[in-house]
Amino acid sequence: MIRIGSIVIRVDDLERQRAFWTAALGYVARDGDGDDFALLHPPDRRGPNISLDRHRSSAQAPPRIHLDLYADDQAAEVERLIGLGATEVHWDRRPADADYVIMADPEGNRFCVIDAG
Amino acid sequence: MIRIGSIVIRVDDLERQRAFWTAALGYVARDGDGDDFALLHPPDRRGPNISLDRHRSSAQAPPRIHLDLYADDQAAEVERLIGLGATEVHWDRRPADADYVIMADPEGNRFCVIDAG
Repeated sequence: MIRIGSIVIRVDDLERQRAFWTAALGYVARDGDGDDFALLHPPDRRGPNISLDRHRSSAQAPPRIHLDLYADDQAAEVERLIGLGATEVHWDRRPADADYVIMADPEGNRFCVIDAG
Repeated sequence: MIRIGSIVIRVDDLERQRAFWTAALGYVARDGDGDDFALLHPPDRRGPNISLDRHRSSAQAPPRIHLDLYADDQAAEVERLIGLGATEVHWDRRPADADYVIMADPEGNRFCVIDAG
């Protein structure tokens, strides 16, 4: 048995990224992690974790790998994520009927919010 | 409601990456996708998808974002993944007691296989 257990994101500021990603996904930070690493998991522990790994590195744009977040109410989630410190990325080649909104987390990692409603 | 719906990987050779990632995870390719995009999902449609998006891009090493695959039998999975076209990445600073093996998929995207047994 093998499964996608976690998506690992390198971070510069662990505190800020932990605050953003726990709030963005409704995740919980595992107890006992130190200053260099944080494992975030869903409250029911089902579904993939997010691991934050403190390492100097720079965001790649466009990134080779990014997350698609599926939202029931896309507009409301985009608004909520902006309130948490995300920014919307405007791309001039985005199709008018695109089902995605491109965003960046507080350290510039791009992700998309997909209309799954 | 918002959730990690998919991890999107940019690919050069869609066919090769589809073959690797479906076999690696036991995923199924959605019907009807064309030559530029493939959505792979678990057979029971639970858990995150993998989306393969054909775009020229180069792998970043070390990557800002990578997948941790949790394996019940780490050694067997590493062997099996090598048989599918993955390679093991040797890192001279890897601690002797590390619970992870660093690997790369056929296009050089690094991921880890974690001993979850």
